[in-house]
Amino acid sequence: MDGQERGRVGLSNFGSWPHYAGIALGLPNYWYPATWSKRVGRRPLRIELLGEAIMLRREAGKVYALGDICPHRGVPLSMGRQEFPGTWSCVYHGWTFDLETGIVRAALTDGPQSAVCGRVRVRTYPIAERAGIVFLWMGKGPPVPVEDDMPDEFLRPDSVIVGRLTIRQGNWRYAAENSVDEGHAAFLHRYHSLWTKFTRMAGWIVSLQGGDRRGDWVVRTADEIGGVGEFPGLGRWPKFRFWNRAPGRVTVSYRLPGNIRVAYGRYNHYNWYMPLDRERHHYFQFLVAQGNWLQRQVFRLRYWLYRRWLFHVRLNNQDSRMVRLMPETEPAPLYRPDASIAAWRRLCEEARGETV
Amino acid sequence: MDGQERGRVGLSNFGSWPHYAGIALGLPNYWYPATWSKRVGRRPLRIELLGEAIMLRREAGKVYALGDICPHRGVPLSMGRQEFPGTWSCVYHGWTFDLETGIVRAALTDGPQSAVCGRVRVRTYPIAERAGIVFLWMGKGPPVPVEDDMPDEFLRPDSVIVGRLTIRQGNWRYAAENSVDEGHAAFLHRYHSLWTKFTRMAGWIVSLQGGDRRGDWVVRTADEIGGVGEFPGLGRWPKFRFWNRAPGRVTVSYRLPGNIRVAYGRYNHYNWYMPLDRERHHYFQFLVAQGNWLQRQVFRLRYWLYRRWLFHVRLNNQDSRMVRLMPETEPAPLYRPDASIAAWRRLCEEARGETV
Amino acid sequence: MDGQERGRVGLSNFGSWPHYAGIALGLPNYWYPATWSKRVGRRPLRIELLGEAIMLRREAGKVYALGDICPHRGVPLSMGRQEFPGTWSCVYHGWTFDLETGIVRAALTDGPQSAVCGRVRVRTYPIAERAGIVFLWMGKGPPVPVEDDMPDEFLRPDSVIVGRLTIRQGNWRYAAENSVDEGHAAFLHRYHSLWTKFTRMAGWIVSLQGGDRRGDWVVRTADEIGGVGEFPGLGRWPKFRFWNRAPGRVTVSYRLPGNIRVAYGRYNHYNWYMPLDRERHHYFQFLVAQGNWLQRQVFRLRYWLYRRWLFHVRLNNQDSRMVRLMPETEPAPLYRPDASIAAWRRLCEEARGETV
Repeated sequence: MDGQERGRVGLSNFGSWPHYAGIALGLPNYWYPATWSKRVGRRPLRIELLGEAIMLRREAGKVYALGDICPHRGVPLSMGRQEFPGTWSCVYHGWTFDLETGIVRAALTDGPQSAVCGRVRVRTYPIAERAGIVFLWMGKGPPVPVEDDMPDEFLRPDSVIVGRLTIRQGNWRYAAENSVDEGHAAFLHRYHSLWTKFTRMAGWIVSLQGGDRRGDWVVRTADEIGGVGEFPGLGRWPKFRFWNRAPGRVTVSYRLPGNIRVAYGRYNHYNWYMPLDRERHHYFQFLVAQGNWLQRQVFRLRYWLYRRWLFHVRLNNQDSRMVRLMPETEPAPLYRPDASIAAWRRLCEEARGETV
Repeated sequence: MDGQERGRVGLSNFGSWPHYAGIALGLPNYWYPATWSKRVGRRPLRIELLGEAIMLRREAGKVYALGDICPHRGVPLSMGRQEFPGTWSCVYHGWTFDLETGIVRAALTDGPQSAVCGRVRVRTYPIAERAGIVFLWMGKGPPVPVEDDMPDEFLRPDSVIVGRLTIRQGNWRYAAENSVDEGHAAFLHRYHSLWTKFTRMAGWIVSLQGGDRRGDWVVRTADEIGGVGEFPGLGRWPKFRFWNRAPGRVTVSYRLPGNIRVAYGRYNHYNWYMPLDRERHHYFQFLVAQGNWLQRQVFRLRYWLYRRWLFHVRLNNQDSRMVRLMPETEPAPLYRPDASIAAWRRLCEEARGETV
Repeated sequence: MDGQERGRVGLSNFGSWPHYAGIALGLPNYWYPATWSKRVGRRPLRIELLGEAIMLRREAGKVYALGDICPHRGVPLSMGRQEFPGTWSCVYHGWTFDLETGIVRAALTDGPQSAVCGRVRVRTYPIAERAGIVFLWMGKGPPVPVEDDMPDEFLRPDSVIVGRLTIRQGNWRYAAENSVDEGHAAFLHRYHSLWTKFTRMAGWIVSLQGGDRRGDWVVRTADEIGGVGEFPGLGRWPKFRFWNRAPGRVTVSYRLPGNIRVAYGRYNHYNWYMPLDRERHHYFQFLVAQGNWLQRQVFRLRYWLYRRWLFHVRLNNQDSRMVRLMPETEPAPLYRPDASIAAWRRLCEEARGETV
């Protein structure tokens, strides 16, 4: 018996995703949360996003983003210095670029009449700051409004937003799939985790279609929630302890370009998976809630006291370990709960093209 | 003068070995000593052998070996846990495999009726435990009796077996060649080694045919043993000191899939070279002797007191250094003592095929 | 606007260099300063030059250079030992090579009549020692006189030569280009350097032809030296402080195979860039001056007291950082001061061929 082959046959209703293999470096025509606003100052910050090196820098309160490779000899512009306001000079020969347009305004070491002026350009990226976060438009065409690519509640004045930004191993698609995947939580997160220790977690949650479309979001719906099962020839699973309490209702939704929301009722948890290169991704985690000033401070306090460590660090590190170990080999024999992964891949097939 | 070219012409009687280049990852249809029995317990042990990742685990006294990649998402099974006796569950989604057959008996997070059950399988490897060692059959067909692939004396009740298992750099074939090679001992091991310091080592040992076939073994026979030579234009070599004593008679034999025996008279030294991947190999060293209970304890004591450090560590590390540095480039201009290497390569051409 | 494209068009008069891309491993038919004489003794010194591994060793006052790979099994000869005067034996099987010719004089472990004798050879390299430096001829044909490939003043009896030999990241060609490049000094070395802090450095130095040929040397001539410029829309640059003093006249010259001289008047600074492999190069720096015995001691003292640290270490490390970061991608949009780089590349097109 060729198990691999038979497994695929038994689940062949999943179809295939022609473009999915080609987006290892992500979907360009979207806004991405690049970093926290407070991390961008006068000294350049170099980041890598969708395989491109980008230099972020704030001048006179505004954030600018330039491609971080000097077109002359290829050294990183982020090593350079400011000689004149509104410009940035490469450390090597003093080629001086306009922060707004990326055009060379002077090649200082060639004197004032240099023929290079106005004729060479480095790529610039549209920038927007919202809710204490720097968003970057990675497309080549004109950007859509940044509000189109962020959840509405990020903009509400009574929202409190806390979170964590890290670089993790593994391709971003598998990180997104792990997040969308309804099967892993019931097993991977059941053990070795303080966050779920007191929860009566379902044994299985199956969403036959993988999710319903609601505007930009796909909402994962549960067609079957399994408590405890009697497995033929094996026995009952899962085993509950007296301290396991029934959990609240959790709803998982996701949308392009790789943003997952887990609604816990009193607050929402957001993940953004953004390719750095083929083997690594940026992982931006947020908890968002609404309330008056005091409630917001309490929420912030609880995040830093335990939610950050138990949920965003320890629980989500269980996910990271899986994403890091998942090999880049497709297709695997999917099983019924992978319907949500199939739905996510279908969604990627509809990704936004070049904006005009 | 193109030395490389002339050297080959002068020694062109060695012929060539068409299959030898293709077995960088070893000969599959053999039993291999994977590890010491006492190292395999309830917690999985992951090893890599012949380029394959394998999880070893003992349950109810019996050792099982599964391919260490879950067929679902590719994460290592050895990270998993036991949910039911006789099975092993993947850490990620709880796919639960039968230890004996490798067949999926439950996909826990899909509920008791999962369509995956009985339809997906992970590879299992036949296992045998003998003489405190776990042997693994790496072929795809049914295994030969494990006794066929181990020296008889490993099974004698009056034998004592001590040894050492390490991972070393370099392809396994060059490690085996170094062991078979009759030329290197007389030079490499003559210097910087306490083990040989008091021995009157021969200057050269030449076996014109490289060895005689005796059953599964090829026994290297010495057609010429050189004491001290007068080298034209150079002088006498080797130089002996008064403390060098005549050595005992040593016989070197070897057989597939890479097992070399050095018979010292009072005990035998065995080496097994087993590919881990193309650049590394497992190196299993044994000293084996026979005797009554007291003699066996004394042998064990002498091993741990000095033979291990002087022979298995320091002397054999001289070999490891050579194997690590040998480039993967063929053919080299062989010389007369390399007849034993040629014989070893010829032997590899006759390796066991798929068993039926 | 495609900046990259436009930049190239605006500077298209630079032409192209068909052979330049092919000399990533250097120009073979030249003498190279391999190391300081005092570093070569009886114990072998392994170096890598132009992608070749070479063993240097001194016997009876004379330095010998052998290819550092035994033709038998490929292990480094430099791990070997001396058994007979005038020869060197491989550590592995005792193949014994003549230091002068590289021919095998004995394969010790094959006895005195080995068929390998006189039939296998390892490459030897012509060696010359001058001015406390070991020079190596890397060509396959007979060498030119070593004096042809070294500056005359290295041989003067009243010269004092001090310097530093390091291994640096990046291809040797970009290291040489950085040295020849007249544009970078005015920007890169203006900041963060104690060596230039008190100097009134020119804003730009432009040599329209890149240099004049004077014998083996190309001398970079300044057609335009810019003090302070008024850059349209930006302002004045550079800014001087009261402590910046006018510098002395500096002349930069260069010649094959990658030797740059910076003449400061009272002493000369020499750089040799020699490929180790494609990604690294040897960097030999010298300061050379003339004087009587006392002046030479004072020069030596000043070098070790501050010139070495401020100039050869800290200032030239600014260059190294650029060379390391320069990507191996061509062509870039060059600008006017890059005329000297174009001239250097043209010079490489005329490199010495096989000597007969």
